[in-house]
Order: sequence, then C-alpha cells, then structure tokens
Amino acid sequence: MTLNAPTSSGKGEGPAVERALAYAREHREQNLEDLRRLLRQPSVAAQDLGMEDCARLVAAMMEEVGLKAEVVPLAGGHPVVYGELDAGAARTLAFYNHYDVQPPEPLDEWESDPFSAAVRDGMIYARGVADNKGNLVARLKAIQAWLEGEGRLPVNVKLVVEGEEEIGSVHLHDFVHHHGGRLRDARGVVWESGSRDARGRPVISFGCKGILYVELVARGANQDLHSSQAAIVENPAWRLVAALNNLKDLRTDRCLIDGFYDDVRPPTERELDLLRRYPLEEAEMLRHWGISRFIGGLTGLDLALKLFYEPTCTICGLVSGYTGPGSKTVLPRAARAKLDFRLVPDQRAGDVLEKLRRHLARRGFGDIEIRLLGPEDPGQTPADDPLIEVVAESARETYRTEPVIRPRMAGTGPMYLFNRDLGLPTVSGAGIGYHGSLVHAPNEHCRVEDYHLGVEHVIRLLDRFARVEAPPRRPREGALP
Amino acid sequence: MTLNAPTSSGKGEGPAVERALAYAREHREQNLEDLRRLLRQPSVAAQDLGMEDCARLVAAMMEEVGLKAEVVPLAGGHPVVYGELDAGAARTLAFYNHYDVQPPEPLDEWESDPFSAAVRDGMIYARGVADNKGNLVARLKAIQAWLEGEGRLPVNVKLVVEGEEEIGSVHLHDFVHHHGGRLRDARGVVWESGSRDARGRPVISFGCKGILYVELVARGANQDLHSSQAAIVENPAWRLVAALNNLKDLRTDRCLIDGFYDDVRPPTERELDLLRRYPLEEAEMLRHWGISRFIGGLTGLDLALKLFYEPTCTICGLVSGYTGPGSKTVLPRAARAKLDFRLVPDQRAGDVLEKLRRHLARRGFGDIEIRLLGPEDPGQTPADDPLIEVVAESARETYRTEPVIRPRMAGTGPMYLFNRDLGLPTVSGAGIGYHGSLVHAPNEHCRVEDYHLGVEHVIRLLDRFARVEAPPRRPREGALP
Repeated sequence: MTLNAPTSSGKGEGPAVERALAYAREHREQNLEDLRRLLRQPSVAAQDLGMEDCARLVAAMMEEVGLKAEVVPLAGGHPVVYGELDAGAARTLAFYNHYDVQPPEPLDEWESDPFSAAVRDGMIYARGVADNKGNLVARLKAIQAWLEGEGRLPVNVKLVVEGEEEIGSVHLHDFVHHHGGRLRDARGVVWESGSRDARGRPVISFGCKGILYVELVARGANQDLHSSQAAIVENPAWRLVAALNNLKDLRTDRCLIDGFYDDVRPPTERELDLLRRYPLEEAEMLRHWGISRFIGGLTGLDLALKLFYEPTCTICGLVSGYTGPGSKTVLPRAARAKLDFRLVPDQRAGDVLEKLRRHLARRGFGDIEIRLLGPEDPGQTPADDPLIEVVAESARETYRTEPVIRPRMAGTGPMYLFNRDLGLPTVSGAGIGYHGSLVHAPNEHCRVEDYHLGVEHVIRLLDRFARVEAPPRRPREGALP
Repeated sequence: MTLNAPTSSGKGEGPAVERALAYAREHREQNLEDLRRLLRQPSVAAQDLGMEDCARLVAAMMEEVGLKAEVVPLAGGHPVVYGELDAGAARTLAFYNHYDVQPPEPLDEWESDPFSAAVRDGMIYARGVADNKGNLVARLKAIQAWLEGEGRLPVNVKLVVEGEEEIGSVHLHDFVHHHGGRLRDARGVVWESGSRDARGRPVISFGCKGILYVELVARGANQDLHSSQAAIVENPAWRLVAALNNLKDLRTDRCLIDGFYDDVRPPTERELDLLRRYPLEEAEMLRHWGISRFIGGLTGLDLALKLFYEPTCTICGLVSGYTGPGSKTVLPRAARAKLDFRLVPDQRAGDVLEKLRRHLARRGFGDIEIRLLGPEDPGQTPADDPLIEVVAESARETYRTEPVIRPRMAGTGPMYLFNRDLGLPTVSGAGIGYHGSLVHAPNEHCRVEDYHLGVEHVIRLLDRFARVEAPPRRPREGALP
C-alpha cells in the first residue's frame, strides 16, 4: 500500500481511519489529561500572564505528538507557535488556533479556579477550554492518533497557533507577511473555532466579518464646570450626540457614512441557498434576550441576511460627566463614544476609517478626535470550496446529525489573512464547544464527550481531505513572502 | 431716644451702628473662635453625618447671642433651625441660611482635615466655611454686636436655617407651607450666599434660576450582548442618542421641547440696565476655562442675557455599555443620560417635565423612561425693591468699593419659596466668600478678614433696613398658612 496516495474510495471509513479512531478511543483518559495540562497553564494576553510559558508548553506538546515545533518570536508581540509534519503526502492541510485566553475576571463568579481545569458532571471547566485550547489539543490528539494508531498521517499538516487572538491578533499580520511562505503548499486552513448548537448540530462557516473599532472624543473646557455655565460654554456631550446622530438612521437601521456600503458584496446564489436551509432559532433568541422583535421586525432569510451580510455601526460604549447615582449638576469637559463597525467583504477597515473621518469633517465635526482601537478586515472563502464539504461530511459521520452550514459568522476573526491575503480556503467548524459553553464568561466549560468527539472529527477530517478530489488552489502568490 | 423708631437720617453712620461695629471689632478673636466651633461640627446631609448635632449646635449658638431658637422637625427630612428676636421694632427682616454642607470627598486632596477649621496665612479652611456656615455665624455675630454693643436690635429678625440645601432643599417647601406664617411680618429676606469677585467687589443678586433634573433611561435586551448581534437587536444607546438629538438644536443652542420657552419672562429695562453696567469678566473666564469663545461667539450684554435670562438644556452625564480603557465589543442593554434644565421665571419645573414627556412621546420615544431627580422653580425679586439698595449701600460702606449688582444668579436655589410663594423680596449678597473660595471642592476656605467684614456688612445692613423708607410689601397672603 502506497502511503499518502489519495484514494478514490467514496463513502464509508477505510481501515486506516478506523485504526486511528480506535487509538483515540483507547486513549481518552490520556487525551483528557493532556488537555487539562494545557488548561492549567494561564495565558492571558491582555494581562501578559503566562504567555511565554504557554507558548513553550504548546511547542512541547506538539513535539510530543510527533510534530516539528518552533516558537516564532514577533517583535513587540506574543510569539506564534508553528508546528508541522511533512508526511510525504500529496496534500497539505493547515490549522489555525490560538493559545491565549480571555481574562478570567470576575473571579468570584467562578465555581472552580479558572485554571484548575476541574472536571465534574461530565463537564470540564476552565478559562479557554472552548476558546480555544480544547480545539487545539483535540487536533494534536487526532494527529497523534494517526501517527500512533496507523503509523502515518494521511496529509502533511501545518499548525499556526498565535498568542494574541483575544486582543485583536495585533501581530498575526507580521507572521503571515514574514512566514506565510511556510503555508505555500497548503490547500486549506481549518479555523480555530467550532461548537454545537442547541440541537446538537455542529456549526460550520467559512467567512468572518471584519471590524473597525474606534473611540470618538469630543472636548470642551479644560475642567468640568458647574452646569449653570452651560448657557454660555459649549457642552462636548451635545456635540458628541449630534455627531453620532449623523452616523445612523434609526428608521432604516442604515449607517449614514458617505460611501459606507460601496464595497458590500451581495451573497451568491449558493450562499443564499445555505442561509435558506438553516434558519436562525428566532423564537429561542427572542426569549433568551427578552426582546419582542428583531430590528425592522425581520424574520427568516431577511433576518439571516441582515445578521450575516450587512455591516453594522454600533455604539459599544458612551460616557460623559457624572454617571453615579442621583444627580450632579456638571457641565462635562469631555464626552466619549466607543463604536464598532462590523464589516463585510469587500469593505476594508482602513477605508471605512477614512470615510468616517471625512464624513464627520464635512458635517462640521472635524474637531472630534477619532482614536483607532482595532481594525480587522472581513474574509470570505468561496462557498463551492471542497474543504467545506470535507469538514461537513466528517462532522456528519462523527456527530450523526446534519451540520448547520453558514457562509459566514456574524463575529470577527483574522480569517482574511488566510482566505483573502494568502488565498487559502479557510473553514471553521471543527471544535469541541456547545451553545452553553460560556465563552468569554465565568465558568467557561465543555462537555467531556464533545472533546473526545472533536478528536474523532479531526481524525476523519484528515482522512477525507486526503481522499477528496483535489481542491482548486486559489493562489495569491503575491502575498506569500 | 426711642428705641427702634426708624430715623430719616440720610448718609453717614449714626452713633448706634458705630457702637455695634466697635463691639464687633473688639471681639474679632471670639467671633473667629465661634465660627470654628460650628465648622468643626460635621453636617453632611447627603451622608446623614452629624445633622442632628449640628442643628442643636446652631440653636444653641442662636440662644447664646440672644435669639429665641427652635429646632423644627420636618417629616422625613433634616430639621429647620428657626430663630427670632422680637425687638419691638417697626420692621422685621428675615435671613435664610443652611447648616448642611457638601460631602468633603475626595479627602486626600485636603491639606488639612475639612472639619478641623485650620487657620493659616490669613485663611480659614473648612468644608462649609464659605457655603454657608461662615455667612450664618457672621449674621449671628452681627446680631450679637448690636445687642451687646448697643443694647438693642434696630429691626426684628427671623432666621430660617435649613439642613438640606446641598441635597436640593427637599423639605423646605414643607416648612414654608406649614410655618411660613412666622414670616408674616417680615419685609424681606437676606439670602444665604455672598462673595467678592476677582476685583474685590461684593456680588449682589436677587433671583435664582430653577432646575429640572431628570435621568433618561433607554432599555434594550435583558443583558449586554456580543456586538455582532447589533445587526438584528436594537441598541438602546442609539435610541438614547436619537431622543437627545430631538431636545437641542446645536446651531441655535435652543432647546427643542415644544413650548419650552412659552413662559420665559423677558428682562425689564431696569434689569437690562444692571446687566449693562456690570459686564462679565469674559477674558478671564475664557482663559481660566481654556476655551476660545462662548457659545455663538457672544459677548457683552448678549452674553449676560444668555447666561442669566435663558433657560438651558444640559447633558450632565451619559453612560452606556463599556466605558473602560481599550475596546470591548458589547451591545449595551441600557443607556442613560442625566439632564438638567436651568429654568427662568415664569417657567415651572413640573410643567417642563410634562412638556418633555409629551415631546418625547410624540416623536416615538415614549418607551424611554424619565426619572425625576430634582425639581426647583425659579424665583425673581423685582429689581426696584428697596432691599436691594439696602444690601448694596451697606456693602459699599463696608468694602469701600462699588458692588456688582446682578438681577439673577445663573445657579439655582430655593429662593422661589420666599420671593414667589411668600411674596417676600429676597436679596443675596451678604456673605464672606471670595472668587477663590473653592466652594464644593477640596480646601474650601475664606479670608479671615472677609469674615470680619461680613459681620460689619450685616451690622450696617440691619441699620439701613431700619432706616430706609418702608419697602413696599408684596403680600401673597394666600401662600401663608
């Protein structure tokens, strides 16, 4: 038998993948212990807590399963841990993950130490278990299962594990710019995230919205004044309110920035078809959030299109003057608004920032300071890319249910660096979370069974990727160093 | 010599007032010690700190100088201390003061304990010394100087000393309603405040703006959501911004509430004349506050008219979502604005509240909650009332400079309970503060010399009030219980 030769066998699992699966099933206890090992290592990027130790631990765990690992320093940032194994296979698949986690605060709301990785009632509780250390270790364990159970990997693998996802992937661009060549022979990227919805269905998607996060600052006098002076001294809070009012039309829920929608790409027929097939759980969302309707009273496809295909303009924060209990008669010295714009292809964060600046200046608000707090572009993998079906079909086999396939998440990630800048099809949906995982919140957790199924999903995914007809590579050679 | 008979002598000080002044000058040390005694007694209404003890101390100090004192309880509030002396005189003058003080916080910014009444470099430092215990004790000391130095008071006196001025005079209305009859024979009220401007001129005024202080609350989902949901879930921060934008026109700086200006009374010729004679210290204000111009580029009489005769609509506070450093992608569950409206005669706080409610409801913002945090009506004494010249002329003699006479303060106080509801002419301007007294701020202080001059001002004021041609009483008998 020639290793690594793609076979044309259709459905069903061959004996090779069975041996890998068997190995994983025999080593569930060890696999869980190895996950807990990584979970016990704090790695809070925002607080620079345990980052170097965690990067070294990830590299060590890669080496233990048989990968070649390297901690790649990034000037001014936390390193990327890069791992690879050239199995001599015809295909190469890349994985993107991150080893950093959100801050665990508020600590007193945790029922067990967020870095103790407590297991109880079939759950494992830890900061980062669902986002995203569980997914990372499941992938390592799948690779190990192939190597130990079958003696070989069906595809070459390349793992990019960054340390700044939770703080906006500040330096991932530098890694892709300087080291993207390492992914030259990859034919796709499996994204970091993945979870099961309330009906147990794995959710697969292959695009991310981008984001432009800014703070607007309006300034008045050099000190807070007694509010009786408001008759003659300009109030920056009113200026901020007027400026904000120029950014959004509440009746249409449209952003008013000149040219904001110019580069919005409409959904393709295939994308529309996917959205039609998996409607949102509307009643459940309304009930859970305590609201009576969605914006504009939308439902069905219209609602899904608004959620996934429209860019947003959102006040995330607002502060000025006195905000405590009761009254204080103060004329504020400054007023601030935090805004996020969720962007869709082919918008670009830098372009929208320029448009925002021009829009406000033209309307007489050029004095309002615009502070850039976070830009990420949107990224979209074509809906006909075979990698999508590779992830979906291996999910069907693993979870014995039809996955939900969404063209795009409503949220943001640095996917564009891969699927737009490197031209690599990138698909999300191989993960171990579920709808109740409390990602970013106290008591983040996963079901232990989901973790083990996640390992099996990746085992099958590697097999399918080796066997599927060659995915068309969309080269973006110019972007590769 | 017949005691208490008004004399018709014009300028110059008679021997009686000279004896009172001499007594005060001989007892400066004791007068200062008695002020320090009251300053050392904390009386923070907002924190319910020392209030009863302070009320009893004020009553005791009244008795010590020869007044009949009573602590008048008010249901649910801090008591009024009421003092009077029937001197058998033809005229009766009332005084309004308060014994409560602002909270002393932030404590670490004080150079000496705010309740130690430290004297250094000719200043006396204490919470409440300028606002308003210094004025109160100066009045008691002036009464004592007459009684001890001359053996009689030239007028009957009635002192109303409340304990809730710094928290909006919540129960003073109840006192006036139930006990206003005690002021039946008064022919005027000397107001609590008074200070000298940067040029050393005493500032006299005889009106107050009113205030309507509200909090607007817009609500969305039952929890803060991930901001990616902003595409489909309404954002209360945008609703609040839109609602606020319906309240103010920034180009004209006019409030847009329907009917807001209906009851605004224009200035009389006499009021205009006063405003022309004492222009604002514009250059100094601009420099001190670090601004380049006043609203609309106004100067001179236009600026003064705007400050004193226009009602305002002011955002005092604004808060929603995430307000900390950096970015957090959150769709806020609620948004709040604190607004104050400074009102002018003949606006009424209750009426403006109703107009605000109707205005927002008509424009589709009926869901925004309006929480009433503080209403006070405006009050204005007629500009031709003789009490104004009594205060001014005794100030001229005491400070040897021309006082500034302003028809109205830009700020707010419960003056309307006296000059509107009881029909008693009420005049402010006999006080011991100066422009640098840091009222409501850390290190509040007064010049010791100003305190002693304040005693002399009141001594002369009592004399002049006895001697001036009878001030026309504007009876509002209906308001007297």
